[in-house]
Amino acid sequence: MAEEKTEPEGTPTTSGENVVLIGRKPIMNYVLACLTFFNSGAKQVTIKARGRAISRAVDTVELLRRAFVKDAALQKISIGTEQVERTEGQKSNVSTIEITLAKP
Amino acid sequence: MAEEKTEPEGTPTTSGENVVLIGRKPIMNYVLACLTFFNSGAKQVTIKARGRAISRAVDTVELLRRAFVKDAALQKISIGTEQVERTEGQKSNVSTIEITLAKP
Repeated sequence: MAEEKTEPEGTPTTSGENVVLIGRKPIMNYVLACLTFFNSGAKQVTIKARGRAISRAVDTVELLRRAFVKDAALQKISIGTEQVERTEGQKSNVSTIEITLAKP
Repeated sequence: MAEEKTEPEGTPTTSGENVVLIGRKPIMNYVLACLTFFNSGAKQVTIKARGRAISRAVDTVELLRRAFVKDAALQKISIGTEQVERTEGQKSNVSTIEITLAKP
């Protein structure tokens, strides 16, 4: 479960559980990350995002289902809130989303 | 339940089915629109958004559940794609989200 904590956003960060973390790169990067998981035999892939990247996460899932893995089903969509500490020590809340896609 | 079709986004547009359409206004406007529905006796409210407003929709739901209607449960979250025609006649796809909140 090695996870690069140094780059929390920006790269298609992936952990042992087939997780693709959405950052600020072009959507196609994340679509490819998901595709790689499915093509290497994964039965399900989870797409996670927070804050403004949430709409990007939905874009990724929709593009993937529309164009690349048409038999992938939406297994679960959950939303939540995370507390993030800012540089000045203030805390603010950020919304999160997790979408799990599964192949039959 | 008269619906202003002239402003598809930007105002807390509402239809007969307790729908709040998320646009570009401050999140608090949409939270208040949902609150108004619940306070007038509605048992469920659906929050809809597309494109970049999707993350705003999640923010609205989370703020509402965290601060205002703590007993509201997430009844359904669905995502999809809509075809939008641009001014030049080109078609492009835009992602959508629908979140339904229900009170017990």
